[in-house]
Amino acid sequence: MRSFFYLILLFISMSVQGQNASRMNPVNMDHSIMLIRIAEIEIFEDFIDQYLEILKEESEASVRLEPGVLCIYPMQESERPDQIRLLEIYADSAAYQSHLKTPHFLKYKNSTLHMVKSLALIDMKAIDGESMSKLFAKINSLD
Amino acid sequence: MRSFFYLILLFISMSVQGQNASRMNPVNMDHSIMLIRIAEIEIFEDFIDQYLEILKEESEASVRLEPGVLCIYPMQESERPDQIRLLEIYADSAAYQSHLKTPHFLKYKNSTLHMVKSLALIDMKAIDGESMSKLFAKINSLD
Repeated sequence: MRSFFYLILLFISMSVQGQNASRMNPVNMDHSIMLIRIAEIEIFEDFIDQYLEILKEESEASVRLEPGVLCIYPMQESERPDQIRLLEIYADSAAYQSHLKTPHFLKYKNSTLHMVKSLALIDMKAIDGESMSKLFAKINSLD
Repeated sequence: MRSFFYLILLFISMSVQGQNASRMNPVNMDHSIMLIRIAEIEIFEDFIDQYLEILKEESEASVRLEPGVLCIYPMQESERPDQIRLLEIYADSAAYQSHLKTPHFLKYKNSTLHMVKSLALIDMKAIDGESMSKLFAKINSLD
């Protein structure tokens, strides 16, 4: 009986450790070499709805499939619906270079080229890198 | 012995439930009424360092002390250090109104007024509200 009891405890302890491990990320988490960017994209009016559908799919796939894509958060201006903004955070520049070669990014790029009126990629620095995870923590409990 | 064993199991099960509950947030989590904004702030050059210190403090305090401030993420353009951008997400407009009355916001506002050359607050809509937490999930495992 006692050995069964210890076995259960061991199993529970391993399972809790497993949960914690799954929350960790295997890629670089050094904020000083992260690539942080705001993309400013203007879309031809006739294509806005179509563009948003494709962008939504691409953002979701990038974050889900690429460990080095820490965040892609796409937004649309409320007053000017043709103005799209993305907050993009990559673990490092290698992660970004690898992102550019993925099938989902290439599909997005090729299918939206004619919809994009202008595109500006603006490199940013985090002002508070140290507490980055805290500044985003609540978003992670939204579901 | 058996009752002790069940007691341990009950305790562990309650503790796991407690952990999950603490990850939940008591405020509105309906993304359709969230207030999402990009703030574009230009700072007079002589004040940049001073301004960043004050902004960093204010952002950290807002997220820590106000349940309705879901995220304030301050960034600085790499090429133009006088250009500051913030991604701000509030649970709803009441949370934002309440934020404007907090001591830490008022302290920030009053002590930086003379440092700010221009300020634009741009209301945004999330393009993928449904999977918002997934798009930010990795940031939460950074520490």
